[in-house]
Amino acid sequence: MNNTTLKEIAEQLGISIATVSKSLKNYPDVSEKTKQAVIELASQLNYTPNSFAVNLRTKESKTIGLIIPTIVHHFFSNVIKGILEEAEKRDYLVIILQSDENFELEKKQIKLLINKRVDGIIISLSNGTGDFFHLNEILSQKIPLVLFDKIAKIVECSKVMINDQKAAYDAVDYLIKKGYKKIAHFRGAYIPQNSIDRFLGYKKALEDNQIEYNPSLVYDCDNNNDFEDGYENAKKLIIENPEVDAIFAVTDLVAIGIIKYFNEIGISIPNQIAVLGFSNWFISNVISPTLTTIDQPGFEMGKKSAEILFNEIDLKRNNLPVSFQSIEIETKLIIREST
Amino acid sequence: MNNTTLKEIAEQLGISIATVSKSLKNYPDVSEKTKQAVIELASQLNYTPNSFAVNLRTKESKTIGLIIPTIVHHFFSNVIKGILEEAEKRDYLVIILQSDENFELEKKQIKLLINKRVDGIIISLSNGTGDFFHLNEILSQKIPLVLFDKIAKIVECSKVMINDQKAAYDAVDYLIKKGYKKIAHFRGAYIPQNSIDRFLGYKKALEDNQIEYNPSLVYDCDNNNDFEDGYENAKKLIIENPEVDAIFAVTDLVAIGIIKYFNEIGISIPNQIAVLGFSNWFISNVISPTLTTIDQPGFEMGKKSAEILFNEIDLKRNNLPVSFQSIEIETKLIIREST
Repeated sequence: MNNTTLKEIAEQLGISIATVSKSLKNYPDVSEKTKQAVIELASQLNYTPNSFAVNLRTKESKTIGLIIPTIVHHFFSNVIKGILEEAEKRDYLVIILQSDENFELEKKQIKLLINKRVDGIIISLSNGTGDFFHLNEILSQKIPLVLFDKIAKIVECSKVMINDQKAAYDAVDYLIKKGYKKIAHFRGAYIPQNSIDRFLGYKKALEDNQIEYNPSLVYDCDNNNDFEDGYENAKKLIIENPEVDAIFAVTDLVAIGIIKYFNEIGISIPNQIAVLGFSNWFISNVISPTLTTIDQPGFEMGKKSAEILFNEIDLKRNNLPVSFQSIEIETKLIIREST
Repeated sequence: MNNTTLKEIAEQLGISIATVSKSLKNYPDVSEKTKQAVIELASQLNYTPNSFAVNLRTKESKTIGLIIPTIVHHFFSNVIKGILEEAEKRDYLVIILQSDENFELEKKQIKLLINKRVDGIIISLSNGTGDFFHLNEILSQKIPLVLFDKIAKIVECSKVMINDQKAAYDAVDYLIKKGYKKIAHFRGAYIPQNSIDRFLGYKKALEDNQIEYNPSLVYDCDNNNDFEDGYENAKKLIIENPEVDAIFAVTDLVAIGIIKYFNEIGISIPNQIAVLGFSNWFISNVISPTLTTIDQPGFEMGKKSAEILFNEIDLKRNNLPVSFQSIEIETKLIIREST
């Protein structure tokens, strides 16, 4: 805390700078009344308080923050549901923010949450997130943090994820065992770890089955509009690689874009070409043909992330040591009509 | 505020009850320091403060509350997006709660938000909401309130809605003009005004076109699982009323359940029977056949609700009079393959 603020508080409350500083360090020889006044004023001056002040606040905040990349999204809606249900059980409130896949916005939102003195923060990182210093800000403030789905492996906090590489591997391996020989991959953006891992799973499954990896069969879906990406790349694929007999799509929305285009031009799925998605959105079970996909349990991921966060909040409150967890939620292949 | 609390605060701060009371009434002859300490302690004692304390807090809270019936829902996801974008512009945070269509939970959540001293509240009422006293609690605390979509006409606050009756009327009138003679309605629950209005619009369109209303062509979808309701009622309809040539469904999800069943048993849409939905979910444009529906602009409704709320918060902050608005957002019929 800089001395200007110290001085300001001291003057406004008519007490000495030493007393202000003592109050913030929770010295026993300062009255509760004075400590309260100092913290209240410090917060008004938008001073992000030290851990003492934070601790003092957490006792009454009962609020956590959640930052997700996008809100109109079946998977994230299910995650939110899981988190809200856990918060509900504990009478906690949840502040929800949408980073809109924007790094700068994500940084700003974390500042807002820290200033709001939330008891803990849950984040799925935006595709635009370049470095992780803004996350260290949370940890240095001793605010419990849980990352889920789009995580940063190097950040020291608890994480809830799926094994994207294994899930993708199993999906593609299943296609090969089914007899599909020329399998294309509609991959996601290059930044988030999970779309990279899905690509690596695709590649490894080919290699382990002695099928040569062919980069020209990999199409990029990185315009933050999966449906359009799938639709447009399906158009390209039919011209560039008409002999492809199966497509592994990085998300259900990409797969649905593909199906939409093939239905329009009368390409029969799976007879002429098979399509496999990722996430198991509600929609994947109602379109025609129904979509074979990997079930990515959003509700369970949200529930687990919240359980871990609330546990860390409790441990912190009781000054007990926290050991970070990395939880892998099981996925499974859901076989439907599209393969 | 009861005297026990007054006394408690006075004792803990070592000041007189009179001073506590004066502080809460913002008398000029009490120092800011003392007022701050009193309010801080009052809040710790979970005392929901009087309007003075609330006003004093709103200056720094910059948080609003949002209660929606269900979170995994395309329409409400779009509403949330609209609200978050408006909050973002103003550096406001949004606490989101899911009432899960449960009246008791809705009541409890409103209490939580009031105690949290949010600057304003936006609500779409749950299907289970029986009376509106819990909303008066918000108004008596002088907390700006905006109701949207599932509103209560008698509550004196601003409202953002669509004209469900007119929208339904236009949809059914369109079906009749298209030549459909025997039109069934898969209606929603009996409590929320909007599902009643959609039913009334259906009825009126028949009457105005000299088609006799036949109650046996109205099927209830009130199990809070629209997709299943549509699917199961479609089964019943085919047996009970095989001569029906069109169905007006209360929501897209109900319509998609119907389409799912008809696709399974090989009934061709719209040749054998037409299906018309309500809301224009993303899914309605990607299923086969694509669904004719009414566009219910969730994003605009959320945006408008937030704009009105923030405007009322500003007026209140500047002690200016607020006049409640009732905004009707335009809907439009989106004609696709299913009719």
